[in-house]
Amino acid sequence: MSVILSMFEATQGTRHEAGTTIFSRGDAGNIMYVILEGQVDLRITDGILETLGPGEPFGEMSLIDSEPRVASAVTRTPCRLMSITERQFLDLIHDTPYFGLEVMKVMAKRLRRMNANAGSA
Amino acid sequence: MSVILSMFEATQGTRHEAGTTIFSRGDAGNIMYVILEGQVDLRITDGILETLGPGEPFGEMSLIDSEPRVASAVTRTPCRLMSITERQFLDLIHDTPYFGLEVMKVMAKRLRRMNANAGSA
Repeated sequence: MSVILSMFEATQGTRHEAGTTIFSRGDAGNIMYVILEGQVDLRITDGILETLGPGEPFGEMSLIDSEPRVASAVTRTPCRLMSITERQFLDLIHDTPYFGLEVMKVMAKRLRRMNANAGSA
Repeated sequence: MSVILSMFEATQGTRHEAGTTIFSRGDAGNIMYVILEGQVDLRITDGILETLGPGEPFGEMSLIDSEPRVASAVTRTPCRLMSITERQFLDLIHDTPYFGLEVMKVMAKRLRRMNANAGSA
């Protein structure tokens, strides 16, 4: 995920303490985030879906399809997060196509993980 | 998905009879497809994950992350399919950023569906 991190390395972002809920499952949401520093847990009903680190985006789904958050995001450690609005996201995809590709890679990884979990259930 | 279909409306694509396996779960794959006409089933171990129609892409995951096919794709009806290589995909994302956004919408829909299925298990 170093492609994304390098795009935002000059960005300060916003600091959050450990244990901060960035958003909750079911919330409306039109902002996605990129972790600049620290770790974030994505939580679904059954537990932790994934723990994310620097350079990894989250919250992209609600921004893409305007549906409610499917998971909750809670900081696991103190974090610096960059927020990306829908307008900024569209500009990023337009101006930096590889940003879109990196977001797709993350989504593909999650789809594979969920599929593997479904297979083992 | 009319955005994608309109991009390729001048394309003939390749015809396939109903019941044709386009790719199988576990295959290596570096081609994605867009349905120009007809329906395609995406099958996982448990059954049919999704039935797709005109304008809908499939097979994008292996192209994005170079991992094996996670589902099998079998034509449900006679189909016309357009094949997109990795090079063409990168060009499309670069030249037509909204193509990338449409692919992301499809991936988001699949993630939500898999998550809903996991929640009901």
